[in-house]
Amino acid sequence: MHSPGYSFRETSRDGNARTGLLVTPHGEVETPTFMPVGTQGSVKTLSPTEVAATGARIVLGNTYHLWIRPGPDIIARAGGLHKFASWPHVMLTDSGGFQAFSLADRRTMTEDGFVFRSHIDGSRLALSPEVAMEVQGKIGADIAMQLDVCPPGMSARPELERACATTTRWARRCLAAKRPDQALFGIVQGGTDVALRKAHAEELAAMPFDGLALGGFSVGEPIERMHEVLGEVAPTLDRARPHYLMGVGTPSDLVRAIGTGVDMFDCVLPTRNARNGQALTQRGRIVIKQARYKEDFTPLDPTCSCPACTGGYTRAYLRHLYLAGEILVLRLITEHNLHLYGRLVREAREAIAAGRYASFARAWLGSDGDEP
Amino acid sequence: MHSPGYSFRETSRDGNARTGLLVTPHGEVETPTFMPVGTQGSVKTLSPTEVAATGARIVLGNTYHLWIRPGPDIIARAGGLHKFASWPHVMLTDSGGFQAFSLADRRTMTEDGFVFRSHIDGSRLALSPEVAMEVQGKIGADIAMQLDVCPPGMSARPELERACATTTRWARRCLAAKRPDQALFGIVQGGTDVALRKAHAEELAAMPFDGLALGGFSVGEPIERMHEVLGEVAPTLDRARPHYLMGVGTPSDLVRAIGTGVDMFDCVLPTRNARNGQALTQRGRIVIKQARYKEDFTPLDPTCSCPACTGGYTRAYLRHLYLAGEILVLRLITEHNLHLYGRLVREAREAIAAGRYASFARAWLGSDGDEP
Repeated sequence: MHSPGYSFRETSRDGNARTGLLVTPHGEVETPTFMPVGTQGSVKTLSPTEVAATGARIVLGNTYHLWIRPGPDIIARAGGLHKFASWPHVMLTDSGGFQAFSLADRRTMTEDGFVFRSHIDGSRLALSPEVAMEVQGKIGADIAMQLDVCPPGMSARPELERACATTTRWARRCLAAKRPDQALFGIVQGGTDVALRKAHAEELAAMPFDGLALGGFSVGEPIERMHEVLGEVAPTLDRARPHYLMGVGTPSDLVRAIGTGVDMFDCVLPTRNARNGQALTQRGRIVIKQARYKEDFTPLDPTCSCPACTGGYTRAYLRHLYLAGEILVLRLITEHNLHLYGRLVREAREAIAAGRYASFARAWLGSDGDEP
Repeated sequence: MHSPGYSFRETSRDGNARTGLLVTPHGEVETPTFMPVGTQGSVKTLSPTEVAATGARIVLGNTYHLWIRPGPDIIARAGGLHKFASWPHVMLTDSGGFQAFSLADRRTMTEDGFVFRSHIDGSRLALSPEVAMEVQGKIGADIAMQLDVCPPGMSARPELERACATTTRWARRCLAAKRPDQALFGIVQGGTDVALRKAHAEELAAMPFDGLALGGFSVGEPIERMHEVLGEVAPTLDRARPHYLMGVGTPSDLVRAIGTGVDMFDCVLPTRNARNGQALTQRGRIVIKQARYKEDFTPLDPTCSCPACTGGYTRAYLRHLYLAGEILVLRLITEHNLHLYGRLVREAREAIAAGRYASFARAWLGSDGDEP
């Protein structure tokens, strides 16, 4: 890594899977790692202490949301997002581009970035590479992301090429504008075109980025196609830098991607699905509102050590709370799901270090359906 | 107290205020005490561990809500509400009558109780004194409440007299039908008519109730009138039994009522107001959405030891979370408010034991308005 105070090194390898150690001013992160999403400066429903207890040592904040509310100046005056949100460990922010494009009203894209209206108060905002760096600088996470262009899944090749070219130009502008004491990751685009992905990864790897992210996955393309492309592209990324697969995915997506050499993940799935009453386990999903759990006086997952599974709460009680609209169940299932992700990456690291990643991975591949 | 496994004794006295010790099969409760309300088997937003950390050793469950969902049979099969809701300490349930009358559809009252339709699924339910005992028996709290008639505040004398007479007849039926291993409290009615209150209290005190509750307060009468009547009635209640003022109130209401000899309270105010963004302090309320807190980087209450006040959360951050609709803030303010109530009754006990209740009470009487 290039920014002062940051380093990354591979610590073990098993096939293409690897473990690593990411060092930052707010502590070390063992990889592979999963970053819970704290969209608005809070991992929804949980306290920072509870998030850390899931094993997470890095969380993601969404620049778009924090920019429009409470605003980067308030966060800066609070002493940065770590202090504002009482999160003492490592933090990463995205560039805001993805949400500006997907959530905002009346957005347009030019060579200079995105112009859009806030979905909260309609105010006009312009997100250029320089503004993305300025806003992320004020938020003050350890790791910032470059502004990039993320075309929809299965876009045609000319659109993918234009997205890569613009992303490369913005990469240079972000590197020139970044805060010297923040790390910055570049974002590889190229959709499901392997040649384009590899070429773009080489372009970005030639720049002094602290890490390389794979953007533009899980945006509408068939998930099998994503894994095929990952299998060809991820193993070719510069091994001296961490590899971050953005916005992915289910437990089995993580397990497969780790097998290709990905080090970092973020996804709203464990937290969002929890609020929809879906508890994830290695045996599959538990949809807690289902009548089959009405008199099920067993814990969500007897193999899990999270507070929801060890606190005496039964599936019948959690179902009751969910149907009654009680907030406690949203917390408990969120905590459970993040504990599952925390355990998954921890056990993945142990399996890689022990040279038994393939058998570890097989044990998780059936976990995407409903519990039998 | 009359039921096996239960006892109550006064431990100190200062004017009419007193401390006491309530012993139950699920532990001891020092009085005066405040019972957080766990309407549907959960003190909204908090885990049982967090509730206990506020100092609470007894919570209230609402029979009406638990009856219609998940139903008393499921709770009984779960091993009772203590086990279902993972609450190891003392528990009290109301009779369901108040909610059957105020929440249900198409309710009618006869000599035999209330007939109404569930506000959830429209099913027809009949709540007689015997059913109130049966349902509360299945829920299995330590303390059950008799079915009573609670007329609106400032009802005319004939209506108050009829309510007292029916409540007395139902009192006998509840005592005859109660589970032998549950304690049962009688409920004194009579509105703001002091003579009627005293007469009804005497009627009920002649029966083998384990405690005496004051119902029908804070139901529309001027709050000053309530305190006048409490001042005349509460000191005359049988001192060998605990005195429970139902559904009251603000911190200064508690302080004044403790001064008249009340031992137990429940109220949704600290939890409901928290979810409306109101944090209570001894200096007054903090309405967290107000612009005055936008860049207020101090804790809610620097004198408070709750997780919200000691976890590094600032008013500016809590305001951001509230405006952003983040669940974490509802938890933090709920926890804060219940810590305030826990501290209030703990300090009241200390003040009574030390013979300085009057000066303690004066320090709280300005706490009902907004923070200056």
